[in-house]
This record gives sequence, structure tokens and C-alpha cells, in this order.
Amino acid sequence: MENQVTLDITNNLFTINNLWMMLATALVFIMHLGFATLEAGLTQSKNTINILFKNSVIPAIGLLTYTIVGFNLMYPGESFAGAFFGFAGFGVSATPDDVTNAYNIGYTYWTDFLFQGMFAATAATIVSGAVAERIKLPSFLIFATIFVGLVYPIVGMWKWGGGFLDTLGFYDFAGSSLVHSVGGWGALVGVIFLGPRLGKYAKGKITPIPGHNIPLAVIGVFLLWLGWFGFNGGSVLSADPALVSLVFVTTSLAASAGAIGAMTASWGFLKKPDLTMTLNGILAGLVGITAGADLMSPTESIIIGFIAGVIVVFAVVLFDKIKVDDPVGAISVHLVCGIFGTLAVGIWGDKAGLGQLWNQLIGVVSIGLFVVAATSAIWFGLKKTMGIRVSEEEEYEGLDIGEHAMESYPDFEKVS
Amino acid sequence: MENQVTLDITNNLFTINNLWMMLATALVFIMHLGFATLEAGLTQSKNTINILFKNSVIPAIGLLTYTIVGFNLMYPGESFAGAFFGFAGFGVSATPDDVTNAYNIGYTYWTDFLFQGMFAATAATIVSGAVAERIKLPSFLIFATIFVGLVYPIVGMWKWGGGFLDTLGFYDFAGSSLVHSVGGWGALVGVIFLGPRLGKYAKGKITPIPGHNIPLAVIGVFLLWLGWFGFNGGSVLSADPALVSLVFVTTSLAASAGAIGAMTASWGFLKKPDLTMTLNGILAGLVGITAGADLMSPTESIIIGFIAGVIVVFAVVLFDKIKVDDPVGAISVHLVCGIFGTLAVGIWGDKAGLGQLWNQLIGVVSIGLFVVAATSAIWFGLKKTMGIRVSEEEEYEGLDIGEHAMESYPDFEKVS
Amino acid sequence: MENQVTLDITNNLFTINNLWMMLATALVFIMHLGFATLEAGLTQSKNTINILFKNSVIPAIGLLTYTIVGFNLMYPGESFAGAFFGFAGFGVSATPDDVTNAYNIGYTYWTDFLFQGMFAATAATIVSGAVAERIKLPSFLIFATIFVGLVYPIVGMWKWGGGFLDTLGFYDFAGSSLVHSVGGWGALVGVIFLGPRLGKYAKGKITPIPGHNIPLAVIGVFLLWLGWFGFNGGSVLSADPALVSLVFVTTSLAASAGAIGAMTASWGFLKKPDLTMTLNGILAGLVGITAGADLMSPTESIIIGFIAGVIVVFAVVLFDKIKVDDPVGAISVHLVCGIFGTLAVGIWGDKAGLGQLWNQLIGVVSIGLFVVAATSAIWFGLKKTMGIRVSEEEEYEGLDIGEHAMESYPDFEKVS
Repeated sequence: MENQVTLDITNNLFTINNLWMMLATALVFIMHLGFATLEAGLTQSKNTINILFKNSVIPAIGLLTYTIVGFNLMYPGESFAGAFFGFAGFGVSATPDDVTNAYNIGYTYWTDFLFQGMFAATAATIVSGAVAERIKLPSFLIFATIFVGLVYPIVGMWKWGGGFLDTLGFYDFAGSSLVHSVGGWGALVGVIFLGPRLGKYAKGKITPIPGHNIPLAVIGVFLLWLGWFGFNGGSVLSADPALVSLVFVTTSLAASAGAIGAMTASWGFLKKPDLTMTLNGILAGLVGITAGADLMSPTESIIIGFIAGVIVVFAVVLFDKIKVDDPVGAISVHLVCGIFGTLAVGIWGDKAGLGQLWNQLIGVVSIGLFVVAATSAIWFGLKKTMGIRVSEEEEYEGLDIGEHAMESYPDFEKVS
Repeated sequence: MENQVTLDITNNLFTINNLWMMLATALVFIMHLGFATLEAGLTQSKNTINILFKNSVIPAIGLLTYTIVGFNLMYPGESFAGAFFGFAGFGVSATPDDVTNAYNIGYTYWTDFLFQGMFAATAATIVSGAVAERIKLPSFLIFATIFVGLVYPIVGMWKWGGGFLDTLGFYDFAGSSLVHSVGGWGALVGVIFLGPRLGKYAKGKITPIPGHNIPLAVIGVFLLWLGWFGFNGGSVLSADPALVSLVFVTTSLAASAGAIGAMTASWGFLKKPDLTMTLNGILAGLVGITAGADLMSPTESIIIGFIAGVIVVFAVVLFDKIKVDDPVGAISVHLVCGIFGTLAVGIWGDKAGLGQLWNQLIGVVSIGLFVVAATSAIWFGLKKTMGIRVSEEEEYEGLDIGEHAMESYPDFEKVS
Repeated sequence: MENQVTLDITNNLFTINNLWMMLATALVFIMHLGFATLEAGLTQSKNTINILFKNSVIPAIGLLTYTIVGFNLMYPGESFAGAFFGFAGFGVSATPDDVTNAYNIGYTYWTDFLFQGMFAATAATIVSGAVAERIKLPSFLIFATIFVGLVYPIVGMWKWGGGFLDTLGFYDFAGSSLVHSVGGWGALVGVIFLGPRLGKYAKGKITPIPGHNIPLAVIGVFLLWLGWFGFNGGSVLSADPALVSLVFVTTSLAASAGAIGAMTASWGFLKKPDLTMTLNGILAGLVGITAGADLMSPTESIIIGFIAGVIVVFAVVLFDKIKVDDPVGAISVHLVCGIFGTLAVGIWGDKAGLGQLWNQLIGVVSIGLFVVAATSAIWFGLKKTMGIRVSEEEEYEGLDIGEHAMESYPDFEKVS
């Protein structure tokens, strides 16, 4: 009888925890809409269908590849073959125990799979924005499939699946490195292989190509912030009141400080309070806090977010100076601030210290080397076979007509 | 003392379950915004105010009629007068027991009412898209009121209120038939009574009338997918970890496979990767899995979703061939894939079998006959009295000016 | 052992309650996107960047000032210095007990802080819409900082922090007065200090200045309704099934009746079913029910919502008559219906009675007097020092170029 009571109590806690993890999954899902609207808003109207198409099928590709191989690559469990690679077999299926608290006090097997699957697809979405407005659709879809199906889960295993970075003591709470820098490295390599958009750096000067629909971009950033409550809050892996509520606070304060940091930097150095910089500042703060969202005090979160917001402004300017053409600022936000956030764990918060900072640096470098190598191989292979860039005519006319024979806003007159 | 402890444990479970059901209610609510943006995006800018107006007042009409009669028609309980019809009286009110676990371990009376009320309004919203760009506003509002206040709850009672389809063994987990095909039949009958938009099938050929704002449509589809976590996940009627998490997975995988199915079909047969087809493929997968979301394995969900995604492409093409003019593809998505999803319960998953397939078919046919008869009567009555179609001049100029004397985008030049 | 069991049960309930309060926080957060899209949609495209900028940094300013001083001004606790003012010191921090049920059975200290912080920022957002299209950005940012950092929390303390209105028996469940009328008074005073937009009341007649993107406004209203589930439902301060589910129902029915009320009033008196009036009717119903959302029956909620919906139509017309130029109708929605909702607590529902009505009136008047005085001082100071209105040239050209050197839709031709 006592046992029965105890079991019920544990079951209740399991039900609560699982409920939160499912809701966190739904919140991370909505980040895909956030990325879609952000990237569409920050690019030209002649490429809108193309960007939306990519971002609409990426979650589908991500979830399906994660079903087939990704989940079992990232969490090989007893099939763990070493510190760098493991594979538990194709497909997902659950034993009766897998959907009770015998699997885990925090969630069922199905919740575990879907939460992680939603994360996986975000890595490819980050790349989508950086390579926008000139990439061939079929090549991108193949890249995304390999990237999200193989590259992301292999790196993820190094830490979250119990691999060598976990053994080392590397810390990345919700993925400043494992998600954001992985996406960011893939984006950087893609941009280098592709080259800049036509006209962007012509005649020795930088020609801004403004986004066509800034309200869409604002919708995107707010949805991303909303989704981040699930991204970071769900990374607690239970509904633990103390930890999840702290993570909500650190996440929100870092986003807020990121906005103020980027507003200040753009106002001071670019002379105007730039809205897209401020929006990227919010994202910079969010990416920056992600690695240590459970370790920071409110003050530390504000410091990290503010610095990330300032960094992103200078990173955007710098990448333009060196002719790395990233239409939406994805590399500045996800790679640069992802690295900063990872290192921040060694500088501020409960784990701060030189030893930890060293571990963080090892993680940053090893992830960077692997992702650069892997994505270089993919992009190179695609370039040599089917090609990765659309024709000059198509780029000039827009990918919406070229790839999809559709227009995003057929009722409206365009500026010629 | 032991009793006290037991009661507390049950109360906690009740509180958890009810929390999930309230959140599922909020998720189903956001589907109304999904429908509004989807339908507005896929139609012309001269009719945007009109569509948004309809979709903004439908939830209001739906919730108010459900308060007055709908809930007590759908769940007549002891006032159940037979297998086909029952009515428990006007209005909603709760006894003290109705808000404790004496009512139900899963939710309070108020949660029950609101969750079901949010479902009810979706049926009318489905019709809204199909009849768009030529229907008179007052006629549509009257149709919607009768449809959501009487037709939907009477059919719903047949299964979910314990009527003859429930007795028979017909299965419809979250409403492939009871919600989606009901809306779809109402849409089909409406389109037949109304006829096609001017110029759509003029001079013996099909003239595409493209949607004016595709980003809006993408926002709509993602919000619908998000809302479907509540639509299907809430249909578990508790926060049961095993079942709700399975439903989240089957729902997401069917949506993903629907996207890939429609992308493949449109690329293969229409020669281009069509974004609106792919978006409808996501919805097709969601509608298709809805009847059996709790019965399917991941693989079966992917099969059902993929087939639904392929079906929707051919259904859209076919309806155009037979001059059924459905501007947003609502009939293809909700009626055709709703029927497919209902039958799928007899073909795949835990209940598959010829006997079940027969029961599913009886449900599909009896619901179809009743909704076609009922909505024909309503549309006929409206046509003979106040008329259902705007004048040619108004249709040409747009319903925004004609019905509302407003423009949706007054600052922008239109393509003339 | 018994104690252990009891503790676990309480902990589970604490975890459930806290989960709901964190989700309510996320829902209130998304209201900021609702305000941003609503206000951007209802104004001109030449001022869109400016409005979005304001609404993107307001949550940041709100959360940061609430961290530094607001939370401790609003909930001074033992540092409570009297009935009108108290301050518990700068910054936020939690003891180990503050994140357990020793703090509160409903939520942790961090949840408490963030939920209240999200509320705080909404007050400034309300002002943003009313003063749109002619206010200087730096002046607005300073106003918003002082308003949300000092004015809002001081008034909030009077009731929610245990001040003199609480002692008196004034009732305001979720903030018809404490949030909405506070924002509304600030908006009214701002509009009076600023004066109307150029051309709005020129040559003795009222010239409508229509919103540039009505789909954006619809997105805003639906997101606000969604967020209101957290705003009102979270004000229960626990996941109590009976109370939260009742609040969901009263909130939704008032919103629905508000839509019908405004539709009816606009159709009857303005001759056309006006979409923006209907949208404001939904918001009017929501604001109207907010003070007594836990006290009303469904019928009473419908009455309150319907009246609020009618009121808002006449209020908008009236403010235009007296040349109070509020581009988005924020004063009509938040101030007028906020006052109506506060008084409604004395007229309908569990607390109805002349004594209560008198208390409500005292609350309305004292809050009005203080906020008018405080915001007059701020606006006066700003006007005398840095100025609050942009130049005629900038207003004519648009604040997007003037304040931000950016365009919101650079690809599209504008109506000249």
C-alpha cells in the first residue's frame, strides 16, 4: 500500500515532467516558423518563396532523418562504440517500459526523441539563411539532409550522448556550441564555397541589400525568443521548478541585454538605432546565454547578453569587410556568439575558472574542426557534381521564378 | 489519513491533466489564427479584409453558439434521446462537483466545454476558405452560425457524445471525419452552390489565381501544425505520458512525410517544387493522421502522411479539372484527406482489419450524407432568400471595398 | 515516512503550479509580439520600422528596469514603508528557500519575478501605439523607462503589493486598472502633450489615416487573445483547476462577445462591418473582463464583453470628435474599457454591490489622478528639454527614414 502511494507520487511527477518536455518540444518547433519569417523578412522579395520553401521542408527532413538515423547516432547508448562515434541502429521504437518512469523520471522515449529531433532541424535552418538568395535548391536539400542526419548528431553525441567532450568536462547546457556553432560553421563554409551575392561587393564597395519585409523579421525574432523558453528551459530535462524558472530568467535577461547592447552599439558606431541590428542583438543574447543558462545569476546573464549584443554588431560589419556575404547575419549570431557563449561558461557563473575555460576552448576548436571538415566535403562534392549556385540570370531574376515558378506577392508593384 | 493522502495524489493528477487540457485548448485556439493567415495568404489582396473578417468572427460565433446550444447538443449525457439526437438544454453552468475530479479525472467542466468549443469553430473556418472571394458576408455569417451551432454538434454526438457511430465501433480519435470531413463537406456543397470565381474557368481553360502573400500562408501552416499538438494531443483527454507523447510523434511525422509527399508529387508531376502544394501536404498529413494518431507506429505515421501528401496534389488538380473552384485547397485537404485518414484506421495500426474498415466506411458515408443534406438545405435557403453571391461588379472590384469599405494594404501600388 | 509522503505530494503540486506560471509568463511574453504587429499594422508603412523598434526594445527595457528597481518597488514586502510606497532594494536574488514551496505553493521567486516583469512591460507598450507616427524616439525610450520602472510598479503596489487599495477592498483580478488603465492614462496624456498627426484634423474635418497592413493587425489581436490566457489565467497564481478553467472560459466568452458587440455597433452605426473595430472589440472584451475574470458566470462575461465591444466603437468615434488622435485606438481599448471592466466588478458577479462599486470607483480615480500627474510631469520635462515631437518634414517623410534611415518594405512601390 505504501509502495502503491509512492509509485503514484512518482508517476505524478513523471507526468508533470513529461508534460513540460512535450510543451518545450512544441516551443522549439515554433522556432522553425521564427527562422522562416526572420530569414524571409531579411532578404529580397524575389527570393521569398525559395527561402520559405527551404524552411518549410527542413523540419520535415530533420524529423525524418532523425527518425531513421539521427537519434540513434546521437544517443547510441549501449551501442556506444567509442568516444567519437556510435550507432544504435535504424528507426525508433519503444518498449512498454520506455513510456513509463522506468525510462527516465523526466520524459518518455517518444518525448525524448521528438524534443531532440526538433533541436536537430534547427542546425540546418541556421545554414539556410546564410546561403540564401543564390543557392540551388536541390543542392541545399541534399546538404541539409546530410548535415542534420549525420553531422549534427555525431557532434551532439560527443557531449550529450556521453562522448569524449562529456568525459573531458566540456559544458554546453543547451547548445551554444552543439547547435548554434554547428549551424554557424556549416553556414560559414557554405558562404565561402558559394561566394557573395552579385553586386554585393562590386566596384570595391559594400552595397547593402536590405530585407524586404521587416515586420516578418520582427515576428521571427519574437517567435525565436518564445521558442527559446523551450530550447533552454526544456534542456533542464524536467520541470524542476528552481532550475527551469532560473533558466527562464537568465534567458530573458540575456535577450533583453542583447537588444540594448546592439541598440547602443549601432546607435553609437553606425549613428542610427538600427532595427535589424537590435533584432540580431536579441538573438545574440539568446545564443550567448544558451551554454550556461543554468549557471548564471541575473547580473551575469545581463553582462553576457549585453556583450553578445555588442559583438554581433561588430561581427556583422567585419564579415562584410572581409566579403563574407551572409544576408541575415546568421554567422555573426550563431557562430560568433555561440563561441562567445561557450567560452562564457569558463568566465562567469557557477563553473567559471581557467580549467573550465580550457575545456570550453577544446570543445569550440574540436567542434569547429570537425564541422568545417565535414561540411567542406559536402559542399565540395555538391559543387563538383550538381553545382551549388544558380545561374547569374536566375540570381538576377530571383529564385522564386527560377526554382519554383511562383511569386510571393503577385498583386503588388515592385520597385524596378 | 491514508484517504487524505490518496485524495491529494488524485487531485495532483487531476491538476496536471487539467493543465494540459487547458493548454491544448489554447493551442487549438491558435489554429484560428493559422486558418486566418493561411486563407488570407492564398487569396487575392482585394478580398483580404473580407477573409480576415470572417475568420476573426468565426471563433466568436463558434464559442457563443457552443455556449448556448452546441455543447449540450454534442454531449447530451442523460438527456440523450436516442442514437442520433439529444439535447441537454440551453446554456452552460457547473455544479461544485463539476470543477473537481468528481467530474472527470482529466479536466473540469469548464475545460471540457472550452476545449470542445474551440474544436467546433474550426469546422466553420474550413468552409470559409473554400467559398472565399465571392460569398456575401451576411449569408456566410448565417451559414456559419447554423453550421457550427447545430450541424457540427449533432454529427459530433454520433461518435463523441455516445451516439450510433460510437455503438457501432467507428473510430475517429481526434476528428479526421468529425471535424475535418464535416468542414470539408460543408465547403464542397458551398462551392457547388456558389460556382467558381469569375474568370477561373473562362474560355475552356483553367486560369490560376495565385495567392497574394505567401509568407502569410507559411505562418498559417506552421501555426496549424503547432495547434495540432493540442488538437490531437488534447484528444487523449489527459496528460497520460505514454499516449500524449506518442501522439505528438505520430502527428509530427505524418506532417513531415506529408510535406515530402507533396513536394515529390508536385516536383515530379507539375515539374516544379510547389510551395503551396508542399504547405497543403503538411496539412494533408496532419488531417490524415488525426483519426488514428493514437494507434500508429512511427513508420505507419510516415506512410499515412506521405500518401496524404501525394493525394492532396492530385486532388487539387482534379477538383480544378471538374471546375470545383476552391481557392485554398480546403476540400482536398480536409475532405479528401479526412476520408483517407478515417479509412486508414482500418488499414494500418492497432485497429486495422476488414471489420474496422467497414465501420470506418459506414461512418464516412453516414456523416457525408447528413452534412451534404443539411448544408444543402442551408445554402439553398440562403440562396433563395438573401442570395449567397456578391455582384459581378463587387467580385471584380473586390469584397474588401464592397462589403467593408476598407483596404488591406492602402499604402501599396497594386498590379493593374 | 508519512511526512516524507506529504512533502512529496506538496512538491508535486508546487511543480505543477510553477509549470503553469512559467507557461503563463511565456504567454504574456507573446503579447509583446501581439502589440508590435497590431500597432504596426494599424499605422502607415512609412513609420513601421519606428513602431517595431519601440515595441522590440520595450520588453527589454521593461525586464531590465524591473530587475533593477521595479519588482522591489511593486512588492516591497517587509520593506513596506506605508500604504503608498515601499522599496526592497536594488536587484533581484533568491535564497535557497525562495525556489522551493517555502516561498509560495504556486511558484518560485524567479517565476514570480519574470511573470510580473512581463506584465510591467505591457503598460509601456500600450502607450507606444497611441503616440505613434510623430514621437521622437529618444524621448519615448526615456518615457518608457521611467514609466515602466517607476510609475507602473508604484501603482501596482497599491493593490498587488498590499498597499492602500488592497486594504480598502478594491478588486482588480488581473489588471483592468493596474495594467490597462495605467497604460491608457499614460497614452492619453502623451497624446494631449503631442497633439494630433499632421493632416488628421485639418480644415475642420476628420481625415482617416488607414493602417497599412491589416493582416499584421489580425495576427496581433489573435496573439493578444492567446497571451491573455496567461495574463488572466496566470493571475490565479496557481494551476487551480476550477479557477483557471473558469478564467479561460470567461476570458474567451468576453472576447467573443466583444467581437460581436463591436461588429454590431459598427455595422449599425457606421453602416459597414468594420474589421479594425471588430478587432478592437475583441481587445475591449478582453480588457473589460480582466478585473473580474474569476468572479463572473459565462452569461455575465458575455454581457461585459458585449458592452465593452459597443463602448469601444463609440469611444473611438468620440475621441476623434474631440481631436484626441490615437492611431490604434489604444485609449479607447485600454483606458475606457479598463475603467468599465474595473467598475463591472461592482455591477456583476460574485462581488457585485454598491459598496464594492464605490471601492472600484475610488481605485479608478486614485490611479487616474496619480498616473496623469506622474506622466504629465515626465512628458512636460521631456518636452521642455529634448522635445517630444519630430519635425514636420520628418513626420511627412516618415519616421523610418528620419529616426532609423531604414525602410520596412524597400522592394515595393508606394502609393504616392
